[in-house]
Amino acid sequence: MKQSKVFIPTMKEVPAGADALSHRLLLKAGLIKQSTSGIYSYLPLAARVLNNIETIVREEMEAIDAVEILMPALQQAELWEESGRWGSYGPELMRLTDRHGREFALGPTHEEVVTSIVRDELKSYKQLPLTLFQIQSKFRDEKRPRFGLLRGREFIMKDAYSFHADEASLETTYQDMSQAYTNIFRRVGLNVRPVVADSGAIGGSHTHEFMALSDIGEDTIVYSETTDYAANIEKAEVAYVPNVKHDDVKELTKIETPNVHTAQELADFLNKPLDEITKSMIFKVDGEFIMVLVRGHHEINDVKLKAYFETDHIDLATQAEIVNLLGANPGSLGPIFEKDIKIYADNALQDLNNIVVGANEDGYHLLNANVDRDFTVENYGDFRFILEGESLANDAGIAKFAEGIEVGQVFKLGTKYSEAMNATFLDNQGRAQPLLMGCYGIGVSRTLSAAVEQNNDDSGIIWPKAIAPFDIHVITLNPKKDEQRELGDQLYDDLRQSFDVLYDDRKERAGVKFNDADLIGLPVRVVVGKNAAEGIVEVKRRDTGESEDVAVSELVDYVTALYAQVK
Amino acid sequence: MKQSKVFIPTMKEVPAGADALSHRLLLKAGLIKQSTSGIYSYLPLAARVLNNIETIVREEMEAIDAVEILMPALQQAELWEESGRWGSYGPELMRLTDRHGREFALGPTHEEVVTSIVRDELKSYKQLPLTLFQIQSKFRDEKRPRFGLLRGREFIMKDAYSFHADEASLETTYQDMSQAYTNIFRRVGLNVRPVVADSGAIGGSHTHEFMALSDIGEDTIVYSETTDYAANIEKAEVAYVPNVKHDDVKELTKIETPNVHTAQELADFLNKPLDEITKSMIFKVDGEFIMVLVRGHHEINDVKLKAYFETDHIDLATQAEIVNLLGANPGSLGPIFEKDIKIYADNALQDLNNIVVGANEDGYHLLNANVDRDFTVENYGDFRFILEGESLANDAGIAKFAEGIEVGQVFKLGTKYSEAMNATFLDNQGRAQPLLMGCYGIGVSRTLSAAVEQNNDDSGIIWPKAIAPFDIHVITLNPKKDEQRELGDQLYDDLRQSFDVLYDDRKERAGVKFNDADLIGLPVRVVVGKNAAEGIVEVKRRDTGESEDVAVSELVDYVTALYAQVK
Repeated sequence: MKQSKVFIPTMKEVPAGADALSHRLLLKAGLIKQSTSGIYSYLPLAARVLNNIETIVREEMEAIDAVEILMPALQQAELWEESGRWGSYGPELMRLTDRHGREFALGPTHEEVVTSIVRDELKSYKQLPLTLFQIQSKFRDEKRPRFGLLRGREFIMKDAYSFHADEASLETTYQDMSQAYTNIFRRVGLNVRPVVADSGAIGGSHTHEFMALSDIGEDTIVYSETTDYAANIEKAEVAYVPNVKHDDVKELTKIETPNVHTAQELADFLNKPLDEITKSMIFKVDGEFIMVLVRGHHEINDVKLKAYFETDHIDLATQAEIVNLLGANPGSLGPIFEKDIKIYADNALQDLNNIVVGANEDGYHLLNANVDRDFTVENYGDFRFILEGESLANDAGIAKFAEGIEVGQVFKLGTKYSEAMNATFLDNQGRAQPLLMGCYGIGVSRTLSAAVEQNNDDSGIIWPKAIAPFDIHVITLNPKKDEQRELGDQLYDDLRQSFDVLYDDRKERAGVKFNDADLIGLPVRVVVGKNAAEGIVEVKRRDTGESEDVAVSELVDYVTALYAQVK
Repeated sequence: MKQSKVFIPTMKEVPAGADALSHRLLLKAGLIKQSTSGIYSYLPLAARVLNNIETIVREEMEAIDAVEILMPALQQAELWEESGRWGSYGPELMRLTDRHGREFALGPTHEEVVTSIVRDELKSYKQLPLTLFQIQSKFRDEKRPRFGLLRGREFIMKDAYSFHADEASLETTYQDMSQAYTNIFRRVGLNVRPVVADSGAIGGSHTHEFMALSDIGEDTIVYSETTDYAANIEKAEVAYVPNVKHDDVKELTKIETPNVHTAQELADFLNKPLDEITKSMIFKVDGEFIMVLVRGHHEINDVKLKAYFETDHIDLATQAEIVNLLGANPGSLGPIFEKDIKIYADNALQDLNNIVVGANEDGYHLLNANVDRDFTVENYGDFRFILEGESLANDAGIAKFAEGIEVGQVFKLGTKYSEAMNATFLDNQGRAQPLLMGCYGIGVSRTLSAAVEQNNDDSGIIWPKAIAPFDIHVITLNPKKDEQRELGDQLYDDLRQSFDVLYDDRKERAGVKFNDADLIGLPVRVVVGKNAAEGIVEVKRRDTGESEDVAVSELVDYVTALYAQVK
């Protein structure tokens, strides 16, 4: 394609607020254009990359007998009421009302729709298993859209849904899909790690995320160098390492702690290390107040709390609720009180004694609090985020951290939706059974962004060739010169017999052209310049930066061989 | 693909309310599934057809240097306020509010978004012309969704927008796009006619629609058999054929006409032909009341009125307004009154005398009303729909009617959006000029439906091969028999080296399989049945129904030759 006909508005300076590298590069190289917060247009180069990613996704889906469909973005509220998510999904669900006053959601995901289709049309175990997928724009009203395409409000997903008669069949498809995802991310050129993840509000029992390693830090991955363990930090289990009681039990002592509101302030005030402080927090679990204790250097992990209490609804108690309950503000709380509030403590508090806690009185703390003597712990558990360097549970090794972007997720839903929405099949005995389901997502526009996060240098993007918007960039440095223009035209025609070629035929300065070419980052560049009259052009790899002068007569063979070497 | 893995829920009986043939066939053959009024899921066969159509569209777009992009469905209200359409678009525009209270439209079209992109990023005449296209789901809250995919609320469009420095360039792209559309519809197997159309509320100066001929009657096309004239009936101009005054001027006579409310009732009451009655109607044009007169057998065409008055806003006066204005109800109106209301009459009333009109008094009409003596006509014009058999204006021949489905439209927008949204470029003198624009649409999901409207028989769909979901249907009649199953498996493997093959490996009765195959309508069918043991299979064309027994050794060659013959 002639660059003069394509729309590639490269930029010298990116606007303020583009906080991720991929966001800056996609803007700078003229691939995307922001419409409003979290909403973007994909300009010609990005549209080509998306098409390339989608082609790979389709091939790998069809290879595992997943069948493409296309469901609507407009989803009537009634379906979401059946699943219970109309109420529970919250403000991320974009909602609208049609001219007749009927309510709709703009689909962020399609469990309800696909379940409604299959329950009406699939009757028998003979039609199982069935895996349906689609590639489509999704909508989620993010509170804080950021990082360009990585956390937008309208984004492109491949979502798939599988239906099964039994667990073994679900497990087979779950493994097939995981392998297909591994293939897809390898083919698009992404360095991705599957990690154990939390099943969260979507429900279900078993899930992995595919994390593209990146400095952007949308998610933290916990992994081990000695085992193949990898998990989202939300999910990574901490090994219980027994504490040794280091003191005799001392007398409970109330001390004045003026202007102390945080564990760190308390540690500083007492001149103790942070891990000798105990933090006490009040949560509301399905309407009931509980207290959770962790050590001062640990952070409570509400995903683990939700899993422990088997609920989707855990909220931190409000300040008003806390004052009303314990007569003190957050920052002065502790486990010693007369109320009927159950106390749950992190494993790292087991066997500790003489701990420092809040006095439930603003401005005061207690030294030497001791479990069983001064208060009762209902249960211990793993209620916190692991720290880098700690031991992982189940002998999985020592926790190392990496930052990652979630680009895919596979999920066993079980019968959550089929039971709520009465989606059954007749088994081989003629009995109606709820369908077992799996769901599987790939962020297509995220994958584009993640590929840019992982493949770039100071000059711009370095596209993996499988998804590059074009294979070859032919650049005529000065098209006003006949010999350059004519040779450029000829090479463009020759090369596009076998390659997707972008031909920079623009009447721009050579510096502008080189700059744009580096930014755009096509795998192989052919520069027609001052040696055109001698039939010599320069061929350059974008990834290594290596270049060579090549005779025109050998160009197609040379480029073909070079392109084969590029990743 | 194995049919046991695909989801094709064919039906014996279609639900009530499927009023178009294509709607019934798409449901019956298991291609679509209604979600709610005007909203459908595309099941696996339909998704494949859509992909085939989209591939053809992309190829033809790229052949004319149109470049693919993808714009968001969520469009902030501010853009629509700039163009003025936030107020004028009406209830078809689906609107929603985000969590921060900002208003959005769900895009039914993308003039505003594309203009906002180009105005920010395109600076110079050197970057022109530019044509951008996308393929995307659009949203329009139809008052009465009907005919399945033909008039839905969420539908797939290819929309393109071109930008130009001058009229000549716009005209070139307009012609290129028209040719590309002709190519696309020919390639997908649609019988389509380009017709002159009205430019309507979208604005602009020149437009053609591409009409797929069909009995469904979404639109009426007026054409001539003696010239190449073809137009939407809204636009078809009536030749003025002078009337001959047939009587002396007679005395105005008021007569009682009890219970007469329509022109037909009046004609019956007077025992006169309908064309001797005159109908009088009151319209509000940009807030001003006017009266329009047409003969009794003619219908007023408000598209022509809008064009005549150069406005988007013409409403029929309400009953209350009419009573307030003239003291009588609609049905008793006439042109003789004392008010300052201008009267416009259709050309077919020129030179007529002694006409019958309402008396502006309920229950009375006037005989022998005469222009100039009894009332004044401000102007005559072409204000009505043409009738079949009438002469077309400009010597275009005699009007013939056909029913059609609009599958595409090309449109010169001129500077309507660029001026409203301040989208300028610097011309070769460095002066800022508004961009000239064109817009061009193809209904992708409509094209699928129109293809079914045009290609079917009593047994089901007959897919044109360019868009058929698969090329070949291999059917094993009884897969429980080893020799049939093994031969079926082998032929499936052989044929899919060169073709997209659907392989019916299901354990269903032969009758069910034949029925489904006819409904699904793939171009060529290979049936593995009782002669499998002898190495003989039946090959059948779906279009002609011709079938032949073929030896397995010759099958691939035979099928290849046969497939080449199918359209």
